[in-house]
Amino acid sequence: MGMNGVLRPGHAQIRVLDLEEGIHHYGKVLGLLETGRDKQGRVYFKAWDERDHNSVVLRQADRAGLDHFAFKVANKATLEKLDSDLRAYGVPTERIPAGEMLETGERVRFQIPSGHIFELYAEKKDVGNGMPYVNPEAWVPAAEHGIAPIRMDHCLLYGPDIEKVQKLLEEVLGFYVTEHVVLEDGKTDLAIFLSTSIKAHDIAFVRHPEPGKLHHISFLLDSWEKVLRAADLMSMARVSIDIGPTRHGITRGETIYAFDPSGNRFETFAGGYQTYPDCQPIKWTIDQVGPAIFYHDRKLNEAFLSVVT
Amino acid sequence: MGMNGVLRPGHAQIRVLDLEEGIHHYGKVLGLLETGRDKQGRVYFKAWDERDHNSVVLRQADRAGLDHFAFKVANKATLEKLDSDLRAYGVPTERIPAGEMLETGERVRFQIPSGHIFELYAEKKDVGNGMPYVNPEAWVPAAEHGIAPIRMDHCLLYGPDIEKVQKLLEEVLGFYVTEHVVLEDGKTDLAIFLSTSIKAHDIAFVRHPEPGKLHHISFLLDSWEKVLRAADLMSMARVSIDIGPTRHGITRGETIYAFDPSGNRFETFAGGYQTYPDCQPIKWTIDQVGPAIFYHDRKLNEAFLSVVT
Amino acid sequence: MGMNGVLRPGHAQIRVLDLEEGIHHYGKVLGLLETGRDKQGRVYFKAWDERDHNSVVLRQADRAGLDHFAFKVANKATLEKLDSDLRAYGVPTERIPAGEMLETGERVRFQIPSGHIFELYAEKKDVGNGMPYVNPEAWVPAAEHGIAPIRMDHCLLYGPDIEKVQKLLEEVLGFYVTEHVVLEDGKTDLAIFLSTSIKAHDIAFVRHPEPGKLHHISFLLDSWEKVLRAADLMSMARVSIDIGPTRHGITRGETIYAFDPSGNRFETFAGGYQTYPDCQPIKWTIDQVGPAIFYHDRKLNEAFLSVVT
Amino acid sequence: MGMNGVLRPGHAQIRVLDLEEGIHHYGKVLGLLETGRDKQGRVYFKAWDERDHNSVVLRQADRAGLDHFAFKVANKATLEKLDSDLRAYGVPTERIPAGEMLETGERVRFQIPSGHIFELYAEKKDVGNGMPYVNPEAWVPAAEHGIAPIRMDHCLLYGPDIEKVQKLLEEVLGFYVTEHVVLEDGKTDLAIFLSTSIKAHDIAFVRHPEPGKLHHISFLLDSWEKVLRAADLMSMARVSIDIGPTRHGITRGETIYAFDPSGNRFETFAGGYQTYPDCQPIKWTIDQVGPAIFYHDRKLNEAFLSVVT
Repeated sequence: MGMNGVLRPGHAQIRVLDLEEGIHHYGKVLGLLETGRDKQGRVYFKAWDERDHNSVVLRQADRAGLDHFAFKVANKATLEKLDSDLRAYGVPTERIPAGEMLETGERVRFQIPSGHIFELYAEKKDVGNGMPYVNPEAWVPAAEHGIAPIRMDHCLLYGPDIEKVQKLLEEVLGFYVTEHVVLEDGKTDLAIFLSTSIKAHDIAFVRHPEPGKLHHISFLLDSWEKVLRAADLMSMARVSIDIGPTRHGITRGETIYAFDPSGNRFETFAGGYQTYPDCQPIKWTIDQVGPAIFYHDRKLNEAFLSVVT
Repeated sequence: MGMNGVLRPGHAQIRVLDLEEGIHHYGKVLGLLETGRDKQGRVYFKAWDERDHNSVVLRQADRAGLDHFAFKVANKATLEKLDSDLRAYGVPTERIPAGEMLETGERVRFQIPSGHIFELYAEKKDVGNGMPYVNPEAWVPAAEHGIAPIRMDHCLLYGPDIEKVQKLLEEVLGFYVTEHVVLEDGKTDLAIFLSTSIKAHDIAFVRHPEPGKLHHISFLLDSWEKVLRAADLMSMARVSIDIGPTRHGITRGETIYAFDPSGNRFETFAGGYQTYPDCQPIKWTIDQVGPAIFYHDRKLNEAFLSVVT
Repeated sequence: MGMNGVLRPGHAQIRVLDLEEGIHHYGKVLGLLETGRDKQGRVYFKAWDERDHNSVVLRQADRAGLDHFAFKVANKATLEKLDSDLRAYGVPTERIPAGEMLETGERVRFQIPSGHIFELYAEKKDVGNGMPYVNPEAWVPAAEHGIAPIRMDHCLLYGPDIEKVQKLLEEVLGFYVTEHVVLEDGKTDLAIFLSTSIKAHDIAFVRHPEPGKLHHISFLLDSWEKVLRAADLMSMARVSIDIGPTRHGITRGETIYAFDPSGNRFETFAGGYQTYPDCQPIKWTIDQVGPAIFYHDRKLNEAFLSVVT
Repeated sequence: MGMNGVLRPGHAQIRVLDLEEGIHHYGKVLGLLETGRDKQGRVYFKAWDERDHNSVVLRQADRAGLDHFAFKVANKATLEKLDSDLRAYGVPTERIPAGEMLETGERVRFQIPSGHIFELYAEKKDVGNGMPYVNPEAWVPAAEHGIAPIRMDHCLLYGPDIEKVQKLLEEVLGFYVTEHVVLEDGKTDLAIFLSTSIKAHDIAFVRHPEPGKLHHISFLLDSWEKVLRAADLMSMARVSIDIGPTRHGITRGETIYAFDPSGNRFETFAGGYQTYPDCQPIKWTIDQVGPAIFYHDRKLNEAFLSVVT
């Protein structure tokens, strides 16, 4: 929750090449709960401990990637204000009517300079986390069905003009930079990590010539032991692991990168520090990008650099 | 960080009966880093991963307890606005000049209806977490000196009129309730847990006839394994453990309660869920206060109920 | 596996007051796998990662407790030799024919000086751990059904004449003492912990006037995080927890003690050191029996001392 | 401890190219405790929780590798018997007098068919684990100095004629095979893992044309969280990591492979199952050697296959 009223990453609409494979992956292997299918054929999922109706939406398409990434805002007044602020800033916005997505209110859609489609919305139906709001238990069996992340947490996007993205997110939406990687010139950022809360990142960008590309969607786990469990389950399901379990230097998170059947990278991670807008951003120089990304190996692997969808 | 600009619990000034014992406990056993002593004889500490100069201040006194609990706000303009808002709400405020506490800016002091002294401030010197802001490592040896919490996280206070406290914190300071325990009448809260961020609690209150009492100051650990390590170190140091390791029903945190040499209770904990202001509060009925507090034993112990300072 | 050919605790036959409650507890809550029922009405279970047909056998009876505790030995020749050695030592033995217990070979039964019935056997059918012996995965879903211990690990028995028990176990069966608690006289043992392997204990005894009593049967978990999970599941199932999660001073294991519906105490634990017969035993003096048993609280609780079945 | 009286891997004498670098690595980074230096210039180390005087001995030499690997046996009578058994089996033995290694009794030295030098000994001075044998604490600060393994655990050796090695270890020394990897012919083993205890391996061999080569010496950690800590410390010390943190399919252990400054590979690991001689060995077919070795990646890396010292 930022001071401008942007609460959190709310949902990601992901393109998959084969819907059945996608449903199997996100539902059985990753262990998200399917919450609905719409007339367009989209399939909706939520993580077990999320209370809103959906956080991942799969759409079958000819090429993999991310349709849009949406943030929930505090309420309708905030939605109106941010829409107005965006337009005042020079960003055209579009209204997607309530109900276009299942159990989701009106959305404000706009394109950011890196070419990605963002959305804001204020309403999504509270379907609960499987526990009552009175005298709940600590967790439910769904917390162990598949990898079973707690929530869809953030994404890393590839595209151009990330300094313009940063300015927009800071000045209009109230994000702040937590860490960044600087190129050889000592000035230009290769990568930026931004928060609208006390999370080390709610979203991140890497400079890339092609616009609108997805590096990964990330899902939060409870602990480093759950990261091991996730890696085990990926092996059992023959999921292609990119790297991990390992630690990031940036955010200090404990992580696995892997690929869904369509080639979209996803992350399951735990840990990472909490931060605040008064905290000085952490800078990584390009010669240390190895440990910045993969703290143990201290070097990037080929897939990390080349594969985006 | 709340939408009203209250960032986080910033520091707690704790009264100890014997300063040397207190310094040993908070410095060597708990493993906070001593950052200074002032002319009044107060001793300042910070947790290793905190960047601001201090979060725990010890003052020798005839009786144990909490002098005041302070929140850092986003900036000086926020401090002025909140001071003005408090006075407009009918809460008298006092200004404590910059420098009265080491490396700390001007503070706005006020009493809340439960009898506790709260403070707001915008400035405290960034002394870092022992790692550079350029190309840091993942952690430093101080992360293993003593129990070594990551930060001072929250406190639980006992006093009267907690419904008035809740109203003040919600309406002026921007907190929101995450969980509460309701008495037999189904209306009156025995306990309230409030957040000014996405933490399950930044502060909590239990209804109690005597004003201004401290139940515990809480310190965050990285993991359940660090909770075990903390319990081991407490045993080695002959710290009196109240309860734990165990889990709370409320917040789901993994916890130990124990006592400093002056009888002030402190908590070391890990885990707990993250939440947002759009999340419906969780309610506990009084017949389930056992599992609400101690999820495994499902009943309260005598010390938990009776000992406050 | 001891040098005399005693491999490990093989099975415990436990008396329960209500068979259905017992089946629910050991099968659904503890998460053992039911492997059969015999004509006598006994119900057989194994832990998921055990390969032999059974390790826990429930028998309905009027009072709770332990019928007998059995050790698997290396082979039939070892069984014959140990039987002969026992008789030469002056211990009468009895042969229980193969098949009296499901999938279990001939057993040699004898009473030890503390009044407990012990058995040795060489054969129990290998039913596997749910994974093939060629190219297995790392674990199976059964590893997460209920508390799901890895194996039945050891027991703690209460009775008289434990110095005679120790002598018998050392001289005939090849056990060795790893730790012991000495009474005020500095000579007499209150408790002895013995191993027939590199485990810190395969069995333990506490001096007690009444013969043949059971303190607890213990089940091994993978990690301290699984101990937390076990405590959570016990709370969800309203299992009565005696103490824990905590650590033992003796063996250093991480533990929970709790009760089955018939009042038989069971333990779920992880960790503990490994040891060898050349290692000097660790001695605890009676004034330190608190941290010896419960390392964090450093004192015994009432139930630990008084409840045996 | 095997039924033939071979207790455990006792010490490994390792050749390093630069003694000071080796001392820094094994002492400061790995965190073994230096226990002495002898007239030959060898430097002795033990892991914090080992009680015997040494388990790793460094010798400066022109090429890296393993001088010899030694097992402690139950007592002097066992040493004499095993020496006699070895000679009866056709293996020439040599006696190394007591005192040739610091605090170590007489050793029986012999070469195994893979070209490696093995030793047996019955005596090594008990210097303790830093805790008293009366009323100890759960651990000592040395448990957190550097990576701080619990013990030197096993080694993996490369050489020819591993079926002859297996036969010798089984028939004379009492080892048993726990797992093996079979080549395309379905008969010839590529790799064998053997235990003389209930550990999933006390030693392992991979078939390799060049005799007497070392793949890695392995050190045991307490938990998967300690494996993460080890990887972090390796990164901080710029240790070259081969692979990990990850899991092995064989033994299920959680592991990191890395290199000492001389290029000798070492492993830090946790977990893995316990087994017994009555357990059917697990077989891996050569097409599944990927998950057998690295369970998550499901393929071997280049370094694993090619680098031995």
